[in-house]
Amino acid sequence: VIYMRKKGDVYGAHRVIEPVGYLPQQAIKLDNSLPIYSNEILIDVEYLLITSTAFRRIKEQCHSDISKMKHEFTRIVDEKGKFQDPVTGSGGMLTGTIREIGVSIQNKVNVKKGDKIATLVSLSLTPLKIKEIQEINLNTGHLKIEGYALLFEKGLCVKLPNDLPENLAVALMDIAGAPAMTAKTVVMGQNVIVFGAGKAGLLCLYEAMKRVGPTGKVICVEYDSNKVELVKTLNLAHQVIQIDATKPLEVLERVKEALGGDLADVSINCVNVPDTEMATIISTKDSGIIYFFSMSTTFSKAALGAEGAGKSVKMLIGNGYTEGHAELAFQIMRENEKLKEAFKKYFV
Amino acid sequence: VIYMRKKGDVYGAHRVIEPVGYLPQQAIKLDNSLPIYSNEILIDVEYLLITSTAFRRIKEQCHSDISKMKHEFTRIVDEKGKFQDPVTGSGGMLTGTIREIGVSIQNKVNVKKGDKIATLVSLSLTPLKIKEIQEINLNTGHLKIEGYALLFEKGLCVKLPNDLPENLAVALMDIAGAPAMTAKTVVMGQNVIVFGAGKAGLLCLYEAMKRVGPTGKVICVEYDSNKVELVKTLNLAHQVIQIDATKPLEVLERVKEALGGDLADVSINCVNVPDTEMATIISTKDSGIIYFFSMSTTFSKAALGAEGAGKSVKMLIGNGYTEGHAELAFQIMRENEKLKEAFKKYFV
Repeated sequence: VIYMRKKGDVYGAHRVIEPVGYLPQQAIKLDNSLPIYSNEILIDVEYLLITSTAFRRIKEQCHSDISKMKHEFTRIVDEKGKFQDPVTGSGGMLTGTIREIGVSIQNKVNVKKGDKIATLVSLSLTPLKIKEIQEINLNTGHLKIEGYALLFEKGLCVKLPNDLPENLAVALMDIAGAPAMTAKTVVMGQNVIVFGAGKAGLLCLYEAMKRVGPTGKVICVEYDSNKVELVKTLNLAHQVIQIDATKPLEVLERVKEALGGDLADVSINCVNVPDTEMATIISTKDSGIIYFFSMSTTFSKAALGAEGAGKSVKMLIGNGYTEGHAELAFQIMRENEKLKEAFKKYFV
Repeated sequence: VIYMRKKGDVYGAHRVIEPVGYLPQQAIKLDNSLPIYSNEILIDVEYLLITSTAFRRIKEQCHSDISKMKHEFTRIVDEKGKFQDPVTGSGGMLTGTIREIGVSIQNKVNVKKGDKIATLVSLSLTPLKIKEIQEINLNTGHLKIEGYALLFEKGLCVKLPNDLPENLAVALMDIAGAPAMTAKTVVMGQNVIVFGAGKAGLLCLYEAMKRVGPTGKVICVEYDSNKVELVKTLNLAHQVIQIDATKPLEVLERVKEALGGDLADVSINCVNVPDTEMATIISTKDSGIIYFFSMSTTFSKAALGAEGAGKSVKMLIGNGYTEGHAELAFQIMRENEKLKEAFKKYFV
């Protein structure tokens, strides 16, 4: 029998060394020591999937020298008890195998010892211990390591499916919230606009097309001609508008044209460039809903933009987490072979 | 008969001189010339109510010298055709009397010629012509002027009520969206938390108290002891928690205590300091709704915070405009004499 500590905080506050009273994401230093608390999960880590922001910075700082990079990643994790790039603040996620589940949560989680999983919370809040970095892939930002990580009671992970390539499953994780919210929002007969046909946008389009039925309409707004072609080839929209979404009036005109003078019931913004809030707002009905999933969204531009346009539209901050989001993203890959092949080609 | 131009764009794009294709708020220069287009409203301006951000900057630049300030305000408006502080980007609002309503919108608007009104859209998107600045009030940031302004078809204004002091009515305008959304969201039996008991927070508390009924509970989270006392004196919450809302775990503990272990169904954030997103998120139920009305809200902190905490809470970007918001704010003043007196004392 392994010795196990008492129950910790659901959000992991018991692991925060400093500053006390804050949550792990805001912490400068986490306690990554074993044994686990009775509501934690211990994971043998296989890969750290570093965010492109953090990986690029460290790669540049170390002039792509692998041994220097190994040293730098190890140093950060030793110092902080987690991986969070001290400059950009970003982390990443990890894959691994479950070694142990705390006694007080064994019946609460839907994973078991020995399962291969990916974490759904950021490395920036996950206690981590690196014993050795075995490989660094300079292209993907994936680190093969020996070490362990801890998940809190509220920390989420998902069992990696057997029927999908691991790298594909992992690539779906960071955008799974967007299609899941689309699936929880869009109903038959609606006009839906998806802004941006990147990873997140493509899955949102797929879910929207599935849901609007014969009386609804799905419009894709995208600037890049390759992506426009991809959406057309995959048949993921009733109409694709190729246009710069930072120009609200031009977008509005084309949207009205496409919708026979009407506007969107639901707009989903997945565009990774700034200043597309206004085009999204004025393309949506007063009674409509907007989800902003792009991290390029500026709070005040959205709030003041809607006010200035006299639009009482509902604007939601896209939440990366919603129940069942990973499962839905896997399911889409199983349902649409062509989309799966496109993902393998472009995003893995 | 006054000569009138054809119909303009509902958002005022026809008044944008540069850059073309953008909306008035983003424009560097607007056309403020007469006559009006057939879907515009012409206003004889009485007061410009400059935002504190913009007024403070210009006051400092001019060392509080009134004649220098008059010159600077006039210069900006002459150059841009609107008042938008070139440094901070902010504007303000105005009061005045309606001189003319374009023929194509006379039956669409709920104001008439001769009405005293306040605009509900920012000066940063309102074509304006100053003939003379008569007075500048260094304390309030109000400019008494002779001049005119134009409102677009989608530009909003509200008739100033006869039974409320004008400065009080005007002080209610910039926060009227928050209590109106509270009134459109909160229903009987809910737990509601209002973060911050400033102008917006007080009105949200009032509306929440009115709506939760005997089975619901309204909690106010506020740091400043004077504001805490005010909420208690006015009886605007079932419980006031005096605490620093940048400390999520302490807030969570006190909230649970106040709600008998439960969390909020609706949380309304009106705190004008940064880093209160996390406390708001973890104090709210998974199935709950959060409105962020504070301009100190950071989009990514909210989005990543909810993801990190595994919270599938609905987070809305507080929209300054919603139908009937000004009317509701006026009505609150009529309903609650004590609250009205407090507003006169502290916010006018």
